[in-house]
Order: sequence, then C-alpha cells, then structure tokens
Amino acid sequence: MADLPTLPPAARPGDALTAIDTPALVLDLDAFERNLDAMQAAATAAGVALRPHAKAHKTPAIALAQVQRGAVGICCQKVSEALPFLQAGITDIHISNQTVGPAKATLLARMARHGRFSVCVDHAQQVADLAAATAAEGSTLRIFIEIDIGQGRCGVADAPAVLRLLEALAPHPQLHFAGLQAYQGGVQHVRGHAQRRDAAARAAERTAAVVAALAAAGVACPVVTGGGSGSVEFDLASGVYTELQPGSHVFMDGDYGRNEAGTALRFEHSLFIASTVMSVGGGGRCILDAGLKSLAVDSGLPAVWQDGAPSTTLAYTAANDEHGIVRLADGAAAGATLPPLGSQLLLVPGHCDPTLNLHDQLVVVRGGVVQALWPVAARGLSR
Amino acid sequence: MADLPTLPPAARPGDALTAIDTPALVLDLDAFERNLDAMQAAATAAGVALRPHAKAHKTPAIALAQVQRGAVGICCQKVSEALPFLQAGITDIHISNQTVGPAKATLLARMARHGRFSVCVDHAQQVADLAAATAAEGSTLRIFIEIDIGQGRCGVADAPAVLRLLEALAPHPQLHFAGLQAYQGGVQHVRGHAQRRDAAARAAERTAAVVAALAAAGVACPVVTGGGSGSVEFDLASGVYTELQPGSHVFMDGDYGRNEAGTALRFEHSLFIASTVMSVGGGGRCILDAGLKSLAVDSGLPAVWQDGAPSTTLAYTAANDEHGIVRLADGAAAGATLPPLGSQLLLVPGHCDPTLNLHDQLVVVRGGVVQALWPVAARGLSR
Repeated sequence: MADLPTLPPAARPGDALTAIDTPALVLDLDAFERNLDAMQAAATAAGVALRPHAKAHKTPAIALAQVQRGAVGICCQKVSEALPFLQAGITDIHISNQTVGPAKATLLARMARHGRFSVCVDHAQQVADLAAATAAEGSTLRIFIEIDIGQGRCGVADAPAVLRLLEALAPHPQLHFAGLQAYQGGVQHVRGHAQRRDAAARAAERTAAVVAALAAAGVACPVVTGGGSGSVEFDLASGVYTELQPGSHVFMDGDYGRNEAGTALRFEHSLFIASTVMSVGGGGRCILDAGLKSLAVDSGLPAVWQDGAPSTTLAYTAANDEHGIVRLADGAAAGATLPPLGSQLLLVPGHCDPTLNLHDQLVVVRGGVVQALWPVAARGLSR
Repeated sequence: MADLPTLPPAARPGDALTAIDTPALVLDLDAFERNLDAMQAAATAAGVALRPHAKAHKTPAIALAQVQRGAVGICCQKVSEALPFLQAGITDIHISNQTVGPAKATLLARMARHGRFSVCVDHAQQVADLAAATAAEGSTLRIFIEIDIGQGRCGVADAPAVLRLLEALAPHPQLHFAGLQAYQGGVQHVRGHAQRRDAAARAAERTAAVVAALAAAGVACPVVTGGGSGSVEFDLASGVYTELQPGSHVFMDGDYGRNEAGTALRFEHSLFIASTVMSVGGGGRCILDAGLKSLAVDSGLPAVWQDGAPSTTLAYTAANDEHGIVRLADGAAAGATLPPLGSQLLLVPGHCDPTLNLHDQLVVVRGGVVQALWPVAARGLSR
C-alpha cells in the first residue's frame, strides 16, 4: 500500500532520556566508559592482554571503544557473531567456542582471509573440519585447545588429551597451535568474595597444572586465555592467564551486581531497560510495558531504579510476554505510592547477554540526554 | 573491506531438515496446518469469530494463512508489532493491550488510516491520547474497554468503571466503542482438564456479569473478545465470547503441552529448534549449540525429540548463553548412549512466544524437506 507509516526511531540525539519511546535498551555512557577504563587499566597494570567478550554486547561501537582503549581484539562465541565486527573493522577475533561441520568452518575460514582469527577445539573431528575449510579457502587459523577446568561443559580433561589433539593438528600447517583456553563459568557467580577467590584459585591451579605438564612434554603454550568479569581480579593476579575474556563488566547486570565486590576493581550498572507505566489497576500494582520480550529473566527479575539509584519503594514482581508487574517493595516506607500512568522507570536486567540479544539498538545517554543509537548488529547471530 | 564474506542462509528450499545450519527455528508444516485447520473448524462450528494472536508467531506468512482459513483478523500486543502485518496486507488488527503516550497513539492513528484497527483502554488518559492522535491524523479507531476477570493485570474492575470510561469516550466520535476485552491468562496454564474448565467457567461468569450489568444500563457490547489456547474449548462453548484470541495453538509449546488435553480439540507440537552436538565431553554429557539465545526458558527447559517423538533417552538439563547441556534422562534404558559429535537434535521450546522473538526466520519443513524461509518480521517490535 502507498503511504504506509514507518516505525519512528525510539529516540533522536538531543532527546531527554525521559522522552525515549519504550521499551528501549539504554546505555549510561559515563558509567560505561568508567567500566571500560577500569578494566583496561587493571589489565595493563598486570601485564595481561585484554580480549573482551563481545557476546555480552554484540555491538560493534562497543568493540571499537574497547580496542581503542588497548584491547588486543575481541572474543565471539559463535562464528556468525563475528561477521558484523569484522565488517566494522575489528580484525583480531577469537571464537571462544567449538564449531562443528563444514558450513561454520567455511564461513570462519573465509573471514580468516581478512583478519587474525582463532577458534577452540576439543575433538579431532573439529580439527578435520577446520583443516578442510582453511585448505579450500587458502587461509590460516590460530587454534586453541580448550581444557575443562571444572565447569563441566566443553574442553578436554588433561594434558594427554591436549597432546592427542596436537597430533591431529600436526599435518595441517595452516592451523597454528596458539595455546589453551581455560574458562570456568561457574566461578563467575560465586557470591562471596573469599569463596570466589578460592574457586578462581582452584581453576587457575588446574590450568597451571596442564600448562606445566605440556611444558614437561616440550610443548609451549604461547597464550592461555580465559577468565570472566566475576573472577577478573583473581585471574589478573594468578600469573597463569596471559589473556582475559571478560564481557559483562561493560554493563554489570543484576546477577553480577549480587556478587560481593572486592576493593580493587569495581564496575557500575550502565545498562537499563527504559519502560513506561501503561496501566494502573487497583490491587496495589502498576503495569510496565517491558516483559519477557524486552529483558531476560533466566538470572532473576530486573531491579527497579528511580532517580539514579535502586528503588527502595518498588519491586518488579512478575514478567509476562509484554508486561511487567510492579508492586510496592517489602519494607517500602509507610505512605509510599506507585508511580502514575505514563511514568518512565529504569530496570536493571538480571542477565545482560541474553537481554542485549532481544534488542536491535542501544540508546546511548549521557547526563540524561540521548547521544546516539548504536546498532546491536550481532543480535540473533547464533550460528 | 572489499570481498568480505556474508552470512549464508541457514537452509535453502529442497535441503534436508538434517542439513540445516543450526541453531535454527523449524516449523513442521503438516502439524502447523492441522493446528490452524482444527482451530478454525472449532470456531466456525461454534459460530465464534477467530482472531488469532500474532504475538505468538510475529510472522506475516502465518497471519495470512490464518486469515485465508477464515480468521476475521489478528491480534497484536504492541502497536509497533502491527506494522509488518499491515505491510503484508493484514488490514484488520486489534491491539489487545493498552497504550500510553502520544508516540504510540500517533503511530496507531496513522496505521488506522489503512485498515480496521482497534485497541484496549482501561484509563481516561489513554482515551485522551488516542482522541488527540486520531483527530490529528483524521482516522478512526474501534475501542475495547478491558475488564479484569481475575488475572490481576490490566483492565477495569466492574461495570461502573466501564460506564465511566464510556463517558470519557463520548466526546470523541472518531473513537467507536466496540465492546469488551476479557482475558484471563492464568486460566491457560491450569494443568488439569477439569480444573481448567472450572477456572475458565469462573472467568466467563465474571465477563457475563459485566455484560449483563452494561445491558441493564442500556449499553450493548457488540464484541466480547478474549480467550486463549489453553481455554479455547471452554470459551467457544461459553456463549459469552463473540471472538477468541488464541495464539500458541499454532505451535503448541512445551508449557501448553503439559496441560491435560480434552478430547474435543487437540493441537500438535509444530515448532522446534534444530540444534547440533558441538562438543562431546566426558562425564555423561554432550553439548548442543542452542542455549538462552536460541530458546526461552521462562517456562522450563526444552524437551528433546528424536525420530519424530519425545526422546525417552535424552534430557536437556541446563541452558547457558549459547550452549545446552544434554545428559541421559532418568529412566533411560540400560546401554542408552549419547549422540555423537555433529548429530542434529530437535528441541521443543518451553514457551513459544519469547522463543520466536529470538529468531529472524522460520525454516519451514514438510516431510523432512525444507520448503521455505519465513521472516519473523515483527521480531523485536515491542514498542
């Protein structure tokens, strides 16, 4: 049909935060920049390379800001996820995951003609797929052998298994052994600071033991890559990792916010979902326009913020597909009231990675004023 | 950069299901068509209008298939969600939700120049926003007053509140009172068939009481719209609803599958996530390439299917961002084994609506052969 309307942008540069059409994903640029600066400074001070994980943000503008500050490159979790970053000029990308089959190996081998790419393996069949694809495309790949240091997900168990995979790599000169990947996701969410320090130490010890066993067998590991936002202070000090992969420190979601922080390295909540009260029923509730399709709830419901800080009055108590139910929080002051129809509330999502994956853009705000819209260009790229 | 690779399609028509690049959202066209036919036949037999909910599928090709079978139009849950359906030629769209503020009212009023649009209200301010926007755009809207029949979400409480909103509508001739919306989401997921029948009956009674009170006040409700996939057999027989809004029957997700079905109206699982075993560790696990970014877990983890039926051997036990952990199911036969690296497994998601909202396309399959790729054009449109 002629003259059909189109969807206006959620905001324009210069708009007030409060004027954003909701639900919308909002980035507080000041907090975001402090988070990036703090992480890069800590890595630089420790002499450890920083390779932030782009699966958290999926946003080329953020990757460019990280590389500009000194990151050696980025991590992606899937082969297809790397494409928009390569298109944006990020040319050093590690796929921190296994890939199987010719379709993914071919895409990776094609990208590797345009940059410095690496990928993990934990099985000889993955090596065979990568060898065939790189031979066909005339490209080279850096190969990390992943070891399981306690997470119980991917990775081989021990040094002998690493040595067997090195034998599988040996006939393929276009596949360069780059070192080990050692990541323990479970450590990241241990709440107590001392308990998390101990869990990180056990993971680092397991990693160090494999590195030592390989050295005894005459195999050097140029790079040992791993670590995450929850364990980074311990990983930096461990002397085991030469490169760290934190992702969530950029945003600090609700789940990481529940970790007991140390004194050395702190990050701030920079990511919010702007939402609007779209119905005010009786019964002590109001209804927001942001539910399961605007925020991920796998790590808990979002926290409500008011006036730049966590609300002591309001609690988000249930998420439907497109609705959030807000009630007065337990312990709200006597006389506390619910916000009126049309009020904007900011929500801190429980888990940033899958929340970013719901949105096509970030509305970037500084001092309450919209600065830009950044495309979440790798959203949905899970192949 | 010149010559950068692009992302190949996940599948091409004629490909085998087993050749799809994963993770991918797969629609079994035979089961899907049986689901659509069964729902339309039941509505037609009952003399009740069918207005399927497009928030479940977000896919214009599916809405067109529903209208072709006799649906009077579709529901959308958000104003922006309606745009791709209007662009695809669906011109009778009900926004089964409240909307607040001028941005959304203006977009709706603009769309209403190209079709027959309706929307819900439960507050006079929403009426004022819609009146101003339709006056400015020169369009008309059908207005439904939503009543709360037990869900405790949006909607006014009773007939007097409806009458007050009718007074707010009266000065605006471009806003036509069309009737009531009465939806009880909680009923949909009551597991026992008799218990669900009773819960649906209570909701219908509350609806009928408001309709009767309005009639006594001289107000007719031309349309009473509500109902969902879990309660549809009772809603059709109730004599209360003139129009039903089921959405999930198209796919039958895992959550609806756990409802105890009646004998009258049954639906089949038609929606799957195709995933691939991308790592085979020790410890009795294998790792799939489909996690939180490929399927929604708010209503439980996905079920594993093998050979066209639920697997009695395999259980999906944990979802990470891009990984699914599969182990042998409790009660698996002695000697049962995990699938080898590279195997494709089909997963039935726990909740279809937010799962569709993660994917840009449906891979449509009949008899194990890819027929088409259908864009999930309304994905992410939550404003």
